[in-house]
Amino acid sequence: MDFERIYRDFTELARTGESADGSVTRLLFDKSFWEVARKTKAYMEGAGLTVWTDACGNVHGTWSCGVPEAKTVYMGSHLDTVKEGGLYDGMLGVVGAVEAFRAFLADPAEKRVNVHILATNGEEGNDLGGTFGSRAMAGLVDPDVPGYMEKAAAYGLKREDFDSVQLPMKDGLCYLELHIEQGSTLDKAGEQIGIVTGIVGLQRYGITVSGESNHAGTTMMEYRKDALVGAAKLIAGFDRMAREYGNSMVATVGTISVFPGAVSVIPEQVEMVLEIRNLSEERLDRFAADAVTMGRAIPDVETKFQPIVRKAPVRCDGRIGKMLEGLCLKEGYSFRKMPSGATHDGNAMAAKMPIGMIFVPSRDGISHNKKEFTPWEDASRGMQVLSGLLKKINSQGGLGSDYGL
Amino acid sequence: MDFERIYRDFTELARTGESADGSVTRLLFDKSFWEVARKTKAYMEGAGLTVWTDACGNVHGTWSCGVPEAKTVYMGSHLDTVKEGGLYDGMLGVVGAVEAFRAFLADPAEKRVNVHILATNGEEGNDLGGTFGSRAMAGLVDPDVPGYMEKAAAYGLKREDFDSVQLPMKDGLCYLELHIEQGSTLDKAGEQIGIVTGIVGLQRYGITVSGESNHAGTTMMEYRKDALVGAAKLIAGFDRMAREYGNSMVATVGTISVFPGAVSVIPEQVEMVLEIRNLSEERLDRFAADAVTMGRAIPDVETKFQPIVRKAPVRCDGRIGKMLEGLCLKEGYSFRKMPSGATHDGNAMAAKMPIGMIFVPSRDGISHNKKEFTPWEDASRGMQVLSGLLKKINSQGGLGSDYGL
Repeated sequence: MDFERIYRDFTELARTGESADGSVTRLLFDKSFWEVARKTKAYMEGAGLTVWTDACGNVHGTWSCGVPEAKTVYMGSHLDTVKEGGLYDGMLGVVGAVEAFRAFLADPAEKRVNVHILATNGEEGNDLGGTFGSRAMAGLVDPDVPGYMEKAAAYGLKREDFDSVQLPMKDGLCYLELHIEQGSTLDKAGEQIGIVTGIVGLQRYGITVSGESNHAGTTMMEYRKDALVGAAKLIAGFDRMAREYGNSMVATVGTISVFPGAVSVIPEQVEMVLEIRNLSEERLDRFAADAVTMGRAIPDVETKFQPIVRKAPVRCDGRIGKMLEGLCLKEGYSFRKMPSGATHDGNAMAAKMPIGMIFVPSRDGISHNKKEFTPWEDASRGMQVLSGLLKKINSQGGLGSDYGL
Repeated sequence: MDFERIYRDFTELARTGESADGSVTRLLFDKSFWEVARKTKAYMEGAGLTVWTDACGNVHGTWSCGVPEAKTVYMGSHLDTVKEGGLYDGMLGVVGAVEAFRAFLADPAEKRVNVHILATNGEEGNDLGGTFGSRAMAGLVDPDVPGYMEKAAAYGLKREDFDSVQLPMKDGLCYLELHIEQGSTLDKAGEQIGIVTGIVGLQRYGITVSGESNHAGTTMMEYRKDALVGAAKLIAGFDRMAREYGNSMVATVGTISVFPGAVSVIPEQVEMVLEIRNLSEERLDRFAADAVTMGRAIPDVETKFQPIVRKAPVRCDGRIGKMLEGLCLKEGYSFRKMPSGATHDGNAMAAKMPIGMIFVPSRDGISHNKKEFTPWEDASRGMQVLSGLLKKINSQGGLGSDYGL
């Protein structure tokens, strides 16, 4: 693999939608998105793929090995970015897939699998829902949800588009994705490759803490029912409990509102959202139950938990993980088996076939920011692993049967 | 004292500016304020006082005993209310002062002091500053503060008005005020009279807690610098520390803002305001220093404290307190010596003369709310104590010399 040439191609694509400050913005169906889609099609075609774009803006590049009944390896990532994002999130996986395919094609080995590369639209949060393009392909978007088509129509989408975009994918052998970690685990540990064991599940709870509003001067401490003090004990408690749980359990309160919200008034009510993520749904449920118990024990206030989002964890395929482990050991790459704390297109693809994911380090764990950075050496290593994996699967003619991960 | 007649007069005045929901609103210089000022002047005149209104909207009622060099007892409270406030805050003290004077005048005892009743404007928080009217009278408003006259001009005030409104008050023997407690201490303890030992000092600190924003899914607990978790530990810590300090120390965080404030983003920065109140300035300073030390010890974040408000405590006169104690013991009223957690016109008057304050219970400690309530029996008892105090001071011809409180 010619990583100097690949770097030029990557940079050309990844800088689409760049602002003067160096951040890039390619949002669902926006001008920059269509610009990058057009460039990506040319780039894929140059690699020998047959390209097309579906009704939801996903770019496809397909190649057939010519063997009847051959299975297909799906690979890819997303073309869109967050508002003012960085270069690597998404685009590294698109380029990695195309380059793995190019190396595969150049390899003299007999070809036993087809390749289908996906460069998706709307993976980042947007008003049609994150992982929009992959969910639409996998038939996981329900246009009959009240109000959904009104929002979709604003992007020029029609009801029939949600039928035409769906792919049966019955030929799917697996879906593979290379992605930056977006966390600091690999970077802090100085490890080169993350072998993703699964994409964590997520639960969000709206929490209301109710106390009693009163004059902050005349109400003595012993008579207070301060909702913010109650909420503070909960926030500190969630943090402590997540650390005690270990096993990559994370708990976050990212938003908080206080009523009435005046300097000299004891808070009457606090509203906040607790988000917890983990690879084990059982552990998430247990944490949520423990959080409710903790809320009941906070003195002087009443706490209510309202479930608002629940996403099940997705497991990566153990056979793919085993192959990745073997490849890393053979090449002498340091690696770590780890869950993905972020959602990816793999969440949707897992509804159709086994999935596998490879992480490369994010410098200081920074992502969704113009400072997002992965040294090209690390990025190249990830592409080599993906390329090796594709060759391995081709040579085996499948995933094998080793569920060891 | 005819408390049935007084109740009718009180209600007539206190309901000025009443809304359909039963709350009352009389803001600095607003229409309802001028309406209540007009009614109050008629009411004072009917009690035998000479009435006038100054340039800042304060209503004055004066009476002279005719003795050369006689000292003057100032009494009163405020006519304005908070937005959607209750009946008792302020008006009870105005009516109490007028009725104490009426009883004093009807008493056959020889008169040795003058009486000056104040019914002030803008005591509640407003954009010219709380205790506006009394501060203006006492010469504590500085119209040369940049921007002040621009705000004052919106109410039709001119630079000269801040000269004309000032009263030398060299004749001042003392300032006396009857007020509802606005806290629940008397109500919870079932006590009838609060003998106020002083008005607490107040300090406010803007606190910034800085951490690091990051993805709430991919950033493991051990790598987080969560500003909200840090702030939560501080809020819970201030609450605990205030209880440990005792001696009526109160600490409140009433407002909080989180940046960036998204459900899936670890908070980078929290801004909040800590307010502490106590009768001892030394204790306030010590608490503030302990709070800063606590902030330094919070892991993973940086905390900064910025002083924004500092009001010194005001001591009530010990001789007046002793007289009040004697009056309560004689009448068999249960009482408690207690600080006032709220600011009053007495803060300004204390710059000119000794002050004394009498509290009556607030049902459930509720104030600044239409549900504010003091049983008329309690209100009457407070007026009787004020009336007794005026008679006692007159009979002594001064405050005596007992600093026993």
